[in-house]
Amino acid sequence: SAAAKITTKRLHAVGGVWPMPQISASSPEQYPLNPEAFYFEYGRQSEAQPGCSVLDAAFKRYFSLIFPDYFPGGNVNRPFTLEVSVDHDGCDGYPSQESSERCKCAQFNEPEQNILSSVWLQQMQPFFVNKTDIEDFPRFQFRGILLDTSRHYLPVQAILKTLDAMAYSKFNVFHWHIVDDPSFPYQSQTFPDLSAKGAFHPMTHIYTQTDVQRVISYARLRGIRVLPEFDSPGHTQSWGKGQSDLLTPCYKGGTPSGAFGPVNPTLPSTYQFIARLFKEVSSVFPDSYIHLGGDEVNFFCWKSNPDVRAFMQKMGFGTDFTKLEAFYMESIVNITSTLNKTAIVWQDVFDYHERIPEDTVLHIWKGVPYDYTKELSRITKAGKRVVLAAPWYINHIAYGQDWRKSYTVQPLNFSGTEEQKKLVIGGEVCMWGEYVDATNLTPRLWPRASAAAERLWSDEKQTSSVEKAFPRLQDFRCKLLRRGIQAEPLYVGHCRHEYQGI
Amino acid sequence: SAAAKITTKRLHAVGGVWPMPQISASSPEQYPLNPEAFYFEYGRQSEAQPGCSVLDAAFKRYFSLIFPDYFPGGNVNRPFTLEVSVDHDGCDGYPSQESSERCKCAQFNEPEQNILSSVWLQQMQPFFVNKTDIEDFPRFQFRGILLDTSRHYLPVQAILKTLDAMAYSKFNVFHWHIVDDPSFPYQSQTFPDLSAKGAFHPMTHIYTQTDVQRVISYARLRGIRVLPEFDSPGHTQSWGKGQSDLLTPCYKGGTPSGAFGPVNPTLPSTYQFIARLFKEVSSVFPDSYIHLGGDEVNFFCWKSNPDVRAFMQKMGFGTDFTKLEAFYMESIVNITSTLNKTAIVWQDVFDYHERIPEDTVLHIWKGVPYDYTKELSRITKAGKRVVLAAPWYINHIAYGQDWRKSYTVQPLNFSGTEEQKKLVIGGEVCMWGEYVDATNLTPRLWPRASAAAERLWSDEKQTSSVEKAFPRLQDFRCKLLRRGIQAEPLYVGHCRHEYQGI
Repeated sequence: SAAAKITTKRLHAVGGVWPMPQISASSPEQYPLNPEAFYFEYGRQSEAQPGCSVLDAAFKRYFSLIFPDYFPGGNVNRPFTLEVSVDHDGCDGYPSQESSERCKCAQFNEPEQNILSSVWLQQMQPFFVNKTDIEDFPRFQFRGILLDTSRHYLPVQAILKTLDAMAYSKFNVFHWHIVDDPSFPYQSQTFPDLSAKGAFHPMTHIYTQTDVQRVISYARLRGIRVLPEFDSPGHTQSWGKGQSDLLTPCYKGGTPSGAFGPVNPTLPSTYQFIARLFKEVSSVFPDSYIHLGGDEVNFFCWKSNPDVRAFMQKMGFGTDFTKLEAFYMESIVNITSTLNKTAIVWQDVFDYHERIPEDTVLHIWKGVPYDYTKELSRITKAGKRVVLAAPWYINHIAYGQDWRKSYTVQPLNFSGTEEQKKLVIGGEVCMWGEYVDATNLTPRLWPRASAAAERLWSDEKQTSSVEKAFPRLQDFRCKLLRRGIQAEPLYVGHCRHEYQGI
Repeated sequence: SAAAKITTKRLHAVGGVWPMPQISASSPEQYPLNPEAFYFEYGRQSEAQPGCSVLDAAFKRYFSLIFPDYFPGGNVNRPFTLEVSVDHDGCDGYPSQESSERCKCAQFNEPEQNILSSVWLQQMQPFFVNKTDIEDFPRFQFRGILLDTSRHYLPVQAILKTLDAMAYSKFNVFHWHIVDDPSFPYQSQTFPDLSAKGAFHPMTHIYTQTDVQRVISYARLRGIRVLPEFDSPGHTQSWGKGQSDLLTPCYKGGTPSGAFGPVNPTLPSTYQFIARLFKEVSSVFPDSYIHLGGDEVNFFCWKSNPDVRAFMQKMGFGTDFTKLEAFYMESIVNITSTLNKTAIVWQDVFDYHERIPEDTVLHIWKGVPYDYTKELSRITKAGKRVVLAAPWYINHIAYGQDWRKSYTVQPLNFSGTEEQKKLVIGGEVCMWGEYVDATNLTPRLWPRASAAAERLWSDEKQTSSVEKAFPRLQDFRCKLLRRGIQAEPLYVGHCRHEYQGI
């Protein structure tokens, strides 16, 4: 029908790339993309050559993504070769905070050439059929998604699906908030009781070492780092089930009440345990960063415990329990330093003025809805690097097009020097798990997280209009559907291929 | 682990039925349910006998639901026969507003006996292993769910899945808001251009006659009526694409602007079209009710049109356009009366004081969040039957446990006589489609809609505590998951069998 044709044409005309590339110049000259004659090839000068696991896998993946309806038997027109060259090899490693994700895609003549500065560019963009030169690189180096596998267990398949969708939106850090109060699904080799007694179920609701390795290598092939978080001293109720004497016994009327509080920071055994656990975690997760949590510590139980109070006395902390928390966090940050890992911690750790290593990254989650700019200003002023999460707690759903709020965040619009702005290494979308499990994770995340993705990748000036972004994001959401991601609609309308996986 | 065992035991101990049966008495006496020796049988005195399509299908369905993990080869203990008797036959018909859903399930001796007063009880409840006598019947006869297939197209599979889940919560009316402004997916035999030109896509985004029959018969086997809505005179933009001269041309500065408004109520051709369309709809949908919409008519375009103004003059309506709307609605309600259908309309039709037949049902959607009791009071005072939807627009999502709000609605807690209360024939959960399609429909509906389901089925006094309902509803949500319904979590926790369909 006429109406349908118009809609299709509009969508097709939009057809833009999400997130928007930094520099892109199109000419009207058309190149046909025919699946019978389309090839990825390594450039002759490329540092990476056939056998590069990351690129070999990407070539296979993106061929199917470009031609989802590919049936053999079409006519071969002019062959179209996409030549990929990489300036620096890195095929066997893991993506890191320092990995370059810069790409230059140009039709010099034939074949078309993509020059990557490393193998970690997540999404090659050969979707244009008009002759287009693209030079692309991320605005921020750290573009994360947090999944919470403690409040609800997420089957490995749900995590892998999220990694697929992350790559499509150029997210490059999977922040795995793997344990918390409600459950401890990580199966530790050193302390198997932690999951045997602390998981929702000791056999079905755990992540085995094999599961964890599967997630890490799946992420690696998509240019995604896996940043594990073992949050302490608060948020550790589940730890206590499999590790006795770790948590602080709370007192009521002079005797233990049977309840437990945060990790007990007064016992040497605590630090021995943490050192052994983190030694394992450091070798299991290859990323050079580790997230130590440190948020929302409730002092109520510490205050009730006479041994803790005696320790405070001995250490000269008086009645200032923030000093006790600082003492604990400094100790475990130092433990991770000896393991050659850089710590990321929630901003609470800064707020309590712990003496922490210069390179520790502060994770900003306070100041919602509008005051996170003050937090950015305050913490970067102290010379600390930060990751901004506060405006992107998208587990907080609301009726309507709330992606607009995520999109209009301006991470560098805070009062501070140019030096301070450089300390903002990126941002993170958080999907806390109180109300989220595998049943609703994907439609809640996508395409809402993609709004933040463009803010973190693209030039802010080129992407300042929410209205201009809307049809591109609608189009991108249909592309996600077509790629098997159960992404929810932004508003009234349709995709040519609706979700059928019911 | 101990923790896991405790949780499992708690869930098992809860194991209640949702919605709560009206009368239920348990004894500690235990009956084992063994899939090797469990039988459904028709009672000898039953009016329905083998060959009754509704019960034959229900027996097959519920066997698998009771024993999801059934493998042959277990030991046969004492056989357990569930004998079902029906007081009145009705196996070949459709459920109706008058169908009885009363059931008496008792362990008289052996075999256990279920006495249904008709075949339309959706869910037999043989899940108890303790000896239990149940007498059950619905509080309200009309317990509906509205799906909107115009703002987004829903594949037939998504509708069938919703019907499955509806039966599990004892909903018995599928209110199919099948067309609206954005698209006209119903493929009419009489007017094929309506979907050919008005659907999002003329081949893929339509409901063929076969699709519609499939939905109706799938619903029938689950004791669910299909109530179609063809909303007019507003909400009809998509109708205009395939039916010229139906909508009112809007004027700007004395000439037609190219835009169209509501259905044109001044032309005889309009009523000829409606009569032919509704004649088809009446024969396609067997239910004796039809929903005519009648909500949110914008007078702006009518006012701009000189022909409409002339008609107003001629009819003596002055400048009161509510009289013109009343004229239109009265005419189409009368058309449906000649087709032996009872009309349901949105409350706007009452608000404009149309003269409508005594038996017309008013659908209450205004007065949100707290004033719908006034609407109930006002409309039942005029002697009209009503269906309450206002507090159950659950497309309006919010962060947190918003099912509690749905659960605490008291549909009869309004000022009015006993006679007025009897005019409340039921309630409806509405899932409007602005932000909903097949990707997020199921987790948004379930288990949130189940909260309203219990309010509409069960005794309000027995189900007044939200806190007591919570663990039962959590348990029921796990049961939905187990039955393949992608129902989202209510809060932190887990189900023994998590959703795996990613």
